[in-house]
Amino acid sequence: MRIALLGGTGDIGEGLALRWAYDTDHDVVVGSRDPEKARAKADEYETELDSRGLDRTVNGFDNEMAADRADVVVLAVPAYHVGDVVESVSDVLDEDTILVSPAVGMSRDEDGMHYNPPGVGSVTELVQQRAPADVRVVGAFHNLAADRLANLDVEFDLDTLVVGDDEDARELVASLGGEIDGLRVLDAGAAANAAEAESVTPLVINIAMNNADMHDVGVRYL
Amino acid sequence: MRIALLGGTGDIGEGLALRWAYDTDHDVVVGSRDPEKARAKADEYETELDSRGLDRTVNGFDNEMAADRADVVVLAVPAYHVGDVVESVSDVLDEDTILVSPAVGMSRDEDGMHYNPPGVGSVTELVQQRAPADVRVVGAFHNLAADRLANLDVEFDLDTLVVGDDEDARELVASLGGEIDGLRVLDAGAAANAAEAESVTPLVINIAMNNADMHDVGVRYL
Repeated sequence: MRIALLGGTGDIGEGLALRWAYDTDHDVVVGSRDPEKARAKADEYETELDSRGLDRTVNGFDNEMAADRADVVVLAVPAYHVGDVVESVSDVLDEDTILVSPAVGMSRDEDGMHYNPPGVGSVTELVQQRAPADVRVVGAFHNLAADRLANLDVEFDLDTLVVGDDEDARELVASLGGEIDGLRVLDAGAAANAAEAESVTPLVINIAMNNADMHDVGVRYL
Repeated sequence: MRIALLGGTGDIGEGLALRWAYDTDHDVVVGSRDPEKARAKADEYETELDSRGLDRTVNGFDNEMAADRADVVVLAVPAYHVGDVVESVSDVLDEDTILVSPAVGMSRDEDGMHYNPPGVGSVTELVQQRAPADVRVVGAFHNLAADRLANLDVEFDLDTLVVGDDEDARELVASLGGEIDGLRVLDAGAAANAAEAESVTPLVINIAMNNADMHDVGVRYL
């Protein structure tokens, strides 16, 4: 399967790219608005994997080329860019593509982080609204601590959630996520449930801020 | 310490009453709008504790009498009753009382449960608004699965959160919660962070609805 990580040069994109490249045989492609940056990051990931004895090709392209012919396109960009990035790649998406939305809208004040979704209710639903109608959208990988994910020396045993209106698409993304060592993906249901899933991101940041010895906080549901 | 569980005849109130009575020496008092019902439930809890070899007094009163002279008053009532219950006991609260709010506003549709907070942002902030100004308010114990909590045969190893503007009050409630075996209480910061903490309740219900073999889902932050 071909997985394109748009914004694959940023923190959550970096973590997912490295983990999928390290733990699976899927074709991992890094996208960025700037193709030079994407190529440089892809090279960096290859070097990192090579240092662990893994001879692995990771390609970098501009977002549109990265999304073209990808089976799964992950929008690993900040929430306020998501809509524009979806539109910039819309021409190369079709009913075989699954768009994955890990972004969370947040605001910060002196009390901590607050969930600050777009008017439509959640970033997942915003992506659904902006994507071509036949493209299936799944919200996923929201509350993974990027630093833990991107450091292949760190083992974890964490859960993450999928939400979206197409059950097959949720299952496919859940199964793809489950191929990352230590990650369990649970199903939180329809896109209408995305806000509660996205809200966990500011929550775990607030927990990290308010409790000694808790950093890069993740979640297990049990 | 004297802990009054208003709505201590309902599910989360029952669980907290039984656990505190079983695991600690605190004076546990059950409140209800109907004092007969409160007494009947208190007797039931005593019988349950007695069957486990614990000779323990649990008293039942109407809400106002239960709250009177309690150090900690837990509003274990549905979200849409919380404001009225706060007002009904306001006369007996003072600056030494800590009001604890575990309720979560939710709506249900065909997709699942949705967080549906009051206009002020969260039930915790609603309680703060309705309580006398000198009473300290802590949101806590939101996302504990009531059935697991109320069944003393069930061991668990779960986290719950405290939120509120008074750090000492958060600490006291966290420490009281931590006296329940298997419960760890983490600090999620100010009352402005309550919405994200309360949102976890519909989320864990949605997770239970959408994943085989997951029931009464709880959370660990790690």
